[in-house]
Amino acid sequence: MQRLLTLLTPLGALLALLFVCLMASRVLKASQGNEKMASISAKVREGANAYLRRQYRIVAIFFVAMFALLSLLAFVVKGKNGTHMLTPYVPFAFITGGLFSGLSGFIGMKIATAANARTAHAASQSLNSGLRIAFSAGSVMGFTVVGLGLLDLSVWYFLLKYGFRLEAREITSAMLTFGMGASSMALFARVGGGIFTKAADVGADLVGKVEAGIPEDDPRNPAVIADNVGDNVGDVAGMGADLYESYVGSIISAMALGVSAASRMPTVNDDQAVVIPMAMAGIGVIASILGTFLVRTKEKASQKALLGALRRGTNFSAILIAIAAFPLVLFMLGAEYIGVYGAVISGLVAGVAIGFFTEYQTSDTYKPTQNLAATTKTGPATVIIGGISLGMRSTMAPAIIIAISVLTSYFISGGAATPALGLFGIAISAVGMLSTLGITLATDAYGPVADNAGGIAEMAGLPKEVRERTDALDSLGNTTAATGKGFAIGSAALTALALIVAYTDRIQELDPRFLLNLQITNPAVLTGLLIGAMLPFFFAALTMQAVGRAAQSIVFEVRRQFREIKGLMEGKADADYATCVDLCAKASLREMILPTIVGLVAPVIVGIGLGPNGVVGLLAGALVSGFLIAIMMANAGGAWDNAKKYVEAGNFGGKGSENHKAAVVGDTVGDPFKDTAGPSINILIKLLSMVSIVFAGVVLGFHVIK
Amino acid sequence: MQRLLTLLTPLGALLALLFVCLMASRVLKASQGNEKMASISAKVREGANAYLRRQYRIVAIFFVAMFALLSLLAFVVKGKNGTHMLTPYVPFAFITGGLFSGLSGFIGMKIATAANARTAHAASQSLNSGLRIAFSAGSVMGFTVVGLGLLDLSVWYFLLKYGFRLEAREITSAMLTFGMGASSMALFARVGGGIFTKAADVGADLVGKVEAGIPEDDPRNPAVIADNVGDNVGDVAGMGADLYESYVGSIISAMALGVSAASRMPTVNDDQAVVIPMAMAGIGVIASILGTFLVRTKEKASQKALLGALRRGTNFSAILIAIAAFPLVLFMLGAEYIGVYGAVISGLVAGVAIGFFTEYQTSDTYKPTQNLAATTKTGPATVIIGGISLGMRSTMAPAIIIAISVLTSYFISGGAATPALGLFGIAISAVGMLSTLGITLATDAYGPVADNAGGIAEMAGLPKEVRERTDALDSLGNTTAATGKGFAIGSAALTALALIVAYTDRIQELDPRFLLNLQITNPAVLTGLLIGAMLPFFFAALTMQAVGRAAQSIVFEVRRQFREIKGLMEGKADADYATCVDLCAKASLREMILPTIVGLVAPVIVGIGLGPNGVVGLLAGALVSGFLIAIMMANAGGAWDNAKKYVEAGNFGGKGSENHKAAVVGDTVGDPFKDTAGPSINILIKLLSMVSIVFAGVVLGFHVIK
Repeated sequence: MQRLLTLLTPLGALLALLFVCLMASRVLKASQGNEKMASISAKVREGANAYLRRQYRIVAIFFVAMFALLSLLAFVVKGKNGTHMLTPYVPFAFITGGLFSGLSGFIGMKIATAANARTAHAASQSLNSGLRIAFSAGSVMGFTVVGLGLLDLSVWYFLLKYGFRLEAREITSAMLTFGMGASSMALFARVGGGIFTKAADVGADLVGKVEAGIPEDDPRNPAVIADNVGDNVGDVAGMGADLYESYVGSIISAMALGVSAASRMPTVNDDQAVVIPMAMAGIGVIASILGTFLVRTKEKASQKALLGALRRGTNFSAILIAIAAFPLVLFMLGAEYIGVYGAVISGLVAGVAIGFFTEYQTSDTYKPTQNLAATTKTGPATVIIGGISLGMRSTMAPAIIIAISVLTSYFISGGAATPALGLFGIAISAVGMLSTLGITLATDAYGPVADNAGGIAEMAGLPKEVRERTDALDSLGNTTAATGKGFAIGSAALTALALIVAYTDRIQELDPRFLLNLQITNPAVLTGLLIGAMLPFFFAALTMQAVGRAAQSIVFEVRRQFREIKGLMEGKADADYATCVDLCAKASLREMILPTIVGLVAPVIVGIGLGPNGVVGLLAGALVSGFLIAIMMANAGGAWDNAKKYVEAGNFGGKGSENHKAAVVGDTVGDPFKDTAGPSINILIKLLSMVSIVFAGVVLGFHVIK
Repeated sequence: MQRLLTLLTPLGALLALLFVCLMASRVLKASQGNEKMASISAKVREGANAYLRRQYRIVAIFFVAMFALLSLLAFVVKGKNGTHMLTPYVPFAFITGGLFSGLSGFIGMKIATAANARTAHAASQSLNSGLRIAFSAGSVMGFTVVGLGLLDLSVWYFLLKYGFRLEAREITSAMLTFGMGASSMALFARVGGGIFTKAADVGADLVGKVEAGIPEDDPRNPAVIADNVGDNVGDVAGMGADLYESYVGSIISAMALGVSAASRMPTVNDDQAVVIPMAMAGIGVIASILGTFLVRTKEKASQKALLGALRRGTNFSAILIAIAAFPLVLFMLGAEYIGVYGAVISGLVAGVAIGFFTEYQTSDTYKPTQNLAATTKTGPATVIIGGISLGMRSTMAPAIIIAISVLTSYFISGGAATPALGLFGIAISAVGMLSTLGITLATDAYGPVADNAGGIAEMAGLPKEVRERTDALDSLGNTTAATGKGFAIGSAALTALALIVAYTDRIQELDPRFLLNLQITNPAVLTGLLIGAMLPFFFAALTMQAVGRAAQSIVFEVRRQFREIKGLMEGKADADYATCVDLCAKASLREMILPTIVGLVAPVIVGIGLGPNGVVGLLAGALVSGFLIAIMMANAGGAWDNAKKYVEAGNFGGKGSENHKAAVVGDTVGDPFKDTAGPSINILIKLLSMVSIVFAGVVLGFHVIK
């Protein structure tokens, strides 16, 4: 039975990847529409491909350097006890993690750039057709992420277990490096892509909408192609890499804590505990595939009905998982430890609850965003004050939800008697939260496709109702994106927490005599805490500043083209789109380096200075402040975006009014909040932990303060 | 000898209050200028007095209720061990703390409203005369705060020690309640005053400067008197109460940790350790008074020379203290524990270092603010993105400085061998940092006076050079205010840290069998940490939102007056100033309640739910996130303000340009950042700790999770 359940993971991987092929062929069979649409789509595709090629080239240098460094520690340098500091699998695991994370983003972007014109064309027939194409493209992305994630996990697990016959602890230790590779890649992709997309978006909006007063996606705007390219490299490729990292990160950390927990459960062996998270992910994939079949609407569907269709799919999947996880836990751990099943449910519920509160804060069908829209009556300054307050205030519910979820998972799993078991429960709750990722990501990733389709409809001069339909899809995408962000942030907090525990386990494993003093009143812990809490602030500052700087260069370029290209504003001459694309690419590639380095180097420096106790403080500090800043930024950004849409829908003066201009300022500030800095922080807090774990041996050898 | 040193505290109090009388009489002897100036000043004074009366009335209700609650715990309710939960001194100590904190603000405001016209008149003679009056008024405030602080400390100390013959531990325990009273009052004053001043300022600027295009402080602006009243009730009265709280808080917490430290120092008795912080504060006052005599300039002084004059005074005082603290520590603790002297120096140096970095980030003579000014070229959105990045980035240096200072004070005092001694060292470093408060506050508090003087000069139609001189003084005030904020934030972090330790001591004292498990991996600690870190976000949101809402009501009112009062814009009719003053007062009194309640109630609720371990997590979380948010907000706000001034000085298009409008948006957003939310958070993090300590007994009786 146990063997059979182990096969759930590769089975899930296989089914997911088959489903990807099915969905991809459905998208590719559809027509791209007229020649103009195809040509615009081609331009966007070329820009996105060109950017990703350049990004991967730079990232490749980094990965080669890290591979060399890790190989040095695995094959050459020896620690005090005469063995190498890392196992020989580590460098290879690191590389594959990065590779697959990048691949997830790449495939997602490929299908998104293929689907944009097709969605626009389908939307010109009907809303339902548009939804089908966009959602199929989103499904390709969603199931690529989970499929590749499980494939990678299975291959490594079976290889290390049956090929190299390693023990469970050694397996999870090597696999954490695989997570570190994925996180590094994800951070590059999120930061680089995030800077690209928002620099283009902000730049295009500031000159186009605010100064020149031309509509969004107007072909006269020289930054319009860059803006559409950005949606693909940031919101799609960046998100794919990001969620791949979240997904495997949560599973791996739960596996690692499973080993510790198993040593305290007399009736359970290591393998049983390790397989639970993997098998649960497998179940989740199957449930998600089934859920997608429920996503369809009637022809004349309202916004509400559309959302209902998406909800039906995700809720169905969640319920399936809740049912199937029970026998899984029962078979693997026995009735004595069935409490761990409670942790799964706690994670699922917390994910839904955070998603609900996120939607409440950021959707224009509720008071908070409507009130924010009302602040446009007194100009941009009150819009900014209102949005930042909204974002900061909105941290309360998720913080309390996560607090309750942590305590519930811990105690229900038996943490009061056996702390290791409780901590395993917390890690499992993160896996539970992300188990529906296949379908939640599909409902999330279709947003940028619809957004791009709208751009193409506008540029190709399609009838007004087409744009209206893609707008309906896009606006829905904003809501599902908010929910998706709730899951991403919530799971990041739980995973990071599990990784902190995994770090303390690792230290004890490396040097059982080392006395961890994690008392919060220990000055090393406290200063670590302070510095850790500062890192997300610093990191967010770097990324936002990068967006601001890059956006300024786009503004100057667009202004130059408006000024120098005769006949551009009258639509008689073509804009020079390529220069803007190139400017964005250069800026984002240049600016993505420093923030990523900060994430990689900080835990090592702090570790050497303050020792392992300081590192735990650092990780805890980064976790809490990063969690809160990420929520604040995501929600403020989402609310500004929707408040602007609310004004555009004719409230408080509507399009073109002074109020609208104020709303656009809010939206513009929100762009780097919600799509660059915020989501990157989720990755950062996990990367910090994984780096700490991988380099724990190095830190132990050097640290100054005991 | 020891007795003699004990007298340093009342001596310092006496000298400070005498010096206050001297300075006050110097201010009051000066002429108020012409009748118009006197009448404007009277209007401002009346508005400020009326507001404070209303504020004190509301706060009095709160204090009476708290007095009743504390009396209940001190005289009626008994704990498990059969004794009352609080000592009988607690309710009275609480009241006096609140009273003196309020009084500090009140006296500061009295002199500031008396000095504004006098400063304007003096500035019409010469810059130096203007500086003398303004700085004298600032000195009244600075030395009132330290004088009343030391007076209160001395009276309580001598009363409890020689009157009631209590032990040192009981004395410090009662005095912590006195700190809680001061903190509660300070929070009301800061939040209420902060909302008032910024609502008026933002409202006046948005309609006046941005929409109507009239200059700042133009008498046609109906909100102009409210704006000037706001400077007095917020920047002066609020700051006075705030810094009174910081000052006595740092001393009291050091006294409390002194008792624990003394029990580990065989050669030192409790009283010796307790007296050190008090005596050091006494020395600081004397040194500060001497320092003020160095603050004078030549007639044709440049901005730089003015700053030099202020610096000379503060540096001289700091050096005096550094010299005098050595024999003090030597006599009190003996050569064996002279390391504690190192903590004093570490605190002094950290304060100066944070001040320097704050100035670097926010002064327009350095790159960061100049670069921020350059973002105005692309409109308000990039200004906002730039300012928030600047604020977030600027948290790095202070976080590292505080981290180094904590580690240095801890280890140099002997924390490696005796943790209690190291923790005492940390508390002492906060006292060292604030020992120059008399003079640093004088250089800080004169800013609002100069600001008001400029307003009166403008409204009374004085010659242009008068306004230029008051502007020079005011702009300098912004720099010194930034430095002052650095001290306030740095000392708040160190004091809060000391109070966390005092809390754990208190728990052990109340129930020696209670097993504190402060491991950061304990779920109660972790969830406490998360919720604690969330509180400053939530709190900042509440206060900013209050400002936004109140400012909106001012905007509507000013627009209404512009529309309805015929001849107002032509200067033929008078504006209805009183309505705006009343609107601000109502709004701030209504909105100050909730944030303060949050600060008072949160630690008790979390304590009951998560127990003492959770409370420690809460306090640590609030400390780190509050520290960082406060710095971010102070520096972003300061930089926006000065970037605007930099544009107004003729850079990037100068006054009236589109760039200037963008800069004003930044400044407006920065107002509640730097003058409402930011400084209130400093108080919040200490109040949370003090409430936890005072209600520790209650929490211990109820808590759910062990």
